Amino acid sequence: MQKDDMILISVDDHIVEPPDLFEQHIPAKWKGREPRLVTREAEGTQGWEWEGGASTSTFINAVVTLPKEEWGFDPSSLAEIRPGCYDVRQRVRDMDANGVLASMCFPSFPGMAGNFFAQVEDKALGLACLRAYNDWHIDEWAASHPGRFIPLPVPPLWDPALAAEEVRRTARKGATAIAFTEDAESLGYPSIHSGAWDPFFEACVDEDVTVAIHIASGAVGLPGGEDTPWDVKMCMPTWNALPCALNLMWCKSLLDHPDLKIALSEGGTSWIPGFLDRLERHYGNQKWTGADLGGLTPTELWKRHFLACFICDPSGLLLRDRIGIDNIAYEVDYPHSDCTFPYSSDELWEHMEAAGCTDEEIDKITFENAAKWLRFDPFEHTKREDATVGALKASAADVDMRTRSKVEYKRAFEAQQAAAG
Amino acid sequence: MQKDDMILISVDDHIVEPPDLFEQHIPAKWKGREPRLVTREAEGTQGWEWEGGASTSTFINAVVTLPKEEWGFDPSSLAEIRPGCYDVRQRVRDMDANGVLASMCFPSFPGMAGNFFAQVEDKALGLACLRAYNDWHIDEWAASHPGRFIPLPVPPLWDPALAAEEVRRTARKGATAIAFTEDAESLGYPSIHSGAWDPFFEACVDEDVTVAIHIASGAVGLPGGEDTPWDVKMCMPTWNALPCALNLMWCKSLLDHPDLKIALSEGGTSWIPGFLDRLERHYGNQKWTGADLGGLTPTELWKRHFLACFICDPSGLLLRDRIGIDNIAYEVDYPHSDCTFPYSSDELWEHMEAAGCTDEEIDKITFENAAKWLRFDPFEHTKREDATVGALKASAADVDMRTRSKVEYKRAFEAQQAAAG
Repeated sequence: MQKDDMILISVDDHIVEPPDLFEQHIPAKWKGREPRLVTREAEGTQGWEWEGGASTSTFINAVVTLPKEEWGFDPSSLAEIRPGCYDVRQRVRDMDANGVLASMCFPSFPGMAGNFFAQVEDKALGLACLRAYNDWHIDEWAASHPGRFIPLPVPPLWDPALAAEEVRRTARKGATAIAFTEDAESLGYPSIHSGAWDPFFEACVDEDVTVAIHIASGAVGLPGGEDTPWDVKMCMPTWNALPCALNLMWCKSLLDHPDLKIALSEGGTSWIPGFLDRLERHYGNQKWTGADLGGLTPTELWKRHFLACFICDPSGLLLRDRIGIDNIAYEVDYPHSDCTFPYSSDELWEHMEAAGCTDEEIDKITFENAAKWLRFDPFEHTKREDATVGALKASAADVDMRTRSKVEYKRAFEAQQAAAG
Repeated sequence: MQKDDMILISVDDHIVEPPDLFEQHIPAKWKGREPRLVTREAEGTQGWEWEGGASTSTFINAVVTLPKEEWGFDPSSLAEIRPGCYDVRQRVRDMDANGVLASMCFPSFPGMAGNFFAQVEDKALGLACLRAYNDWHIDEWAASHPGRFIPLPVPPLWDPALAAEEVRRTARKGATAIAFTEDAESLGYPSIHSGAWDPFFEACVDEDVTVAIHIASGAVGLPGGEDTPWDVKMCMPTWNALPCALNLMWCKSLLDHPDLKIALSEGGTSWIPGFLDRLERHYGNQKWTGADLGGLTPTELWKRHFLACFICDPSGLLLRDRIGIDNIAYEVDYPHSDCTFPYSSDELWEHMEAAGCTDEEIDKITFENAAKWLRFDPFEHTKREDATVGALKASAADVDMRTRSKVEYKRAFEAQQAAAG
């Protein structure tokens, strides 16, 4: 296999939501009460606001192709970021240019598990807006380019029964995954050990829907105190997947749902071999806790339930056999600062070569595992020979991937707005 | 090299404090006000108490050689545990039987960094008791068997200047290490980023004293909510070393003290390769945070400052070159449930063989790194040929290493008390 022969499915990218997202999807009854993208003239920033308050982050680190000296945690407006962040046609062109066949996209302003919609007193309004969001995501964003997106709705976290209902509703619309939080208790909901989430998990199993848990989807988005450096705040969340997985591994609900599939989105892979070493030793030793994994070893339980997802993890690739070669998938993380756009295939290939991955292993990591875990047929809409890194890149030679400043982006944005009238 | 040729220094074991520890060391002025080991007849348990309150855990999981079905987090009394936990003569015999030449011992009732002594209103009393504790630890426990212990005093955490003074005082008594907390802020003290700890770090550098940070030395001893299983509570703290190291890596105080040495006690090693991958990528990318590692890469900074300490970490050994072969040391963790007594050398050898370690690498991991980082000459009091696993074990053929029940231990304890009394 050559680098250009790879087929890439990215199981974790991000949408920056366009201002008109609710337009076609909010029922008449609620019109006017949905969240709006507001420009705060004084600060020169934009944010989503509604009667439930304001979003904490609108553009979460969406700095792709900005010069590094202009990066920051939250760019200030839609005009200053790459159009591929919010415009699906541009997004697909960027995927082509980066050699990526298909992408699963997490939200921005609603938070990684959609908890923004819970932050309104009138929960019927919250649910209406959440459903409108999911409908937009599935029917507009994902449906605009068949075969290029794996839809990812968000659940109404404030009510496990409603969350179960939304799993079933969106599954009927073709969704094969649903977002969830890494720490329900931190958001004020019942803990994962309470059994309260069983209806939600049951719906996921019934509908064969994978639970996608992104890092920083609990209450502690970024950790630390007042004087904690940004470097700590930004590096730490990677390992949020570890306590999340640890709790799930010892969770009765998991044993009760042997077909439940969980993607640890942006959780990385390199901590997993040591994690499994530790759990194997603990489970063999600590009989007094009464833990029962239903006849499985921790490693067997892990392999049955978890998909580990990484952007860049050379050490994890070296120990892929200890993680499970059927349990690893790839992510680009477009448009965040950790994303590898536009050199994703180069970096991934370099690390897989260094780790001595076979062709079979490469295919599993780059697309087969993602396709299997997310019930996505990569070749339904795209012929295999057109789906490769090489073919996609060749089709997008005109895409401008240069670094451009915020000012340049803003100028182009304003020109386009003016032209549109 | 053969298994029996290894020389083992364990950089993390634990003392369960004997009731008479303060007797010879508390100044007359404070006599009667020191903590006491109290038997609560109603509950049938023992705990340390004083005007500062009661210790949260007296025997922290000291279950070595108890049958697994009798394990639990905190055994109830001194009578029910292995005498090697609290009796230094028995401890050294157990070290012999386990093939361990030397040991650095963390406290039990005072907490991993001695913060128990802060929990009294009269801070002069706290300081007197803390100093008495350290004097007992250095002059009685460690000095009883020259060449077998690396003393580990604890600092008065409530005052960085006093902590610095205690570093200097105990260094004059021969200490080459001092305990410290993984999260000062969680205990109500200034954060590691505040600069407040600089006098403490400066004293450590001046005296060439290594800072030993044990997991679960912050306020959150065991994590989780009410319904969190014990399995989660017990497995999670291993990775406390990660946020601790992450904060230190981006801490100005570390850069200001290029000779500061930090041991991440019981922090394991397997997360480190991925940790360094992540930091390398972040540091190369996120120029906007203004982080400055003084011309070093994160990996170079890591190797300059950190000693990673593991009990059982087969995945970490596989990637030892990415951690730094000069930055890894071994621990037994006697007498906790994670300890490998009495088969430490067997397990360690098996994992080092599986990882293909060379003789040179084995020597570094088993004793040379510990000796260097803690300024301990293993052969000052013991000839090299008498210091090996094989020689020590041969000298202790009479030590009874069988599993024994609490009732058996209690019977022997009471018989001994009766004979003595």
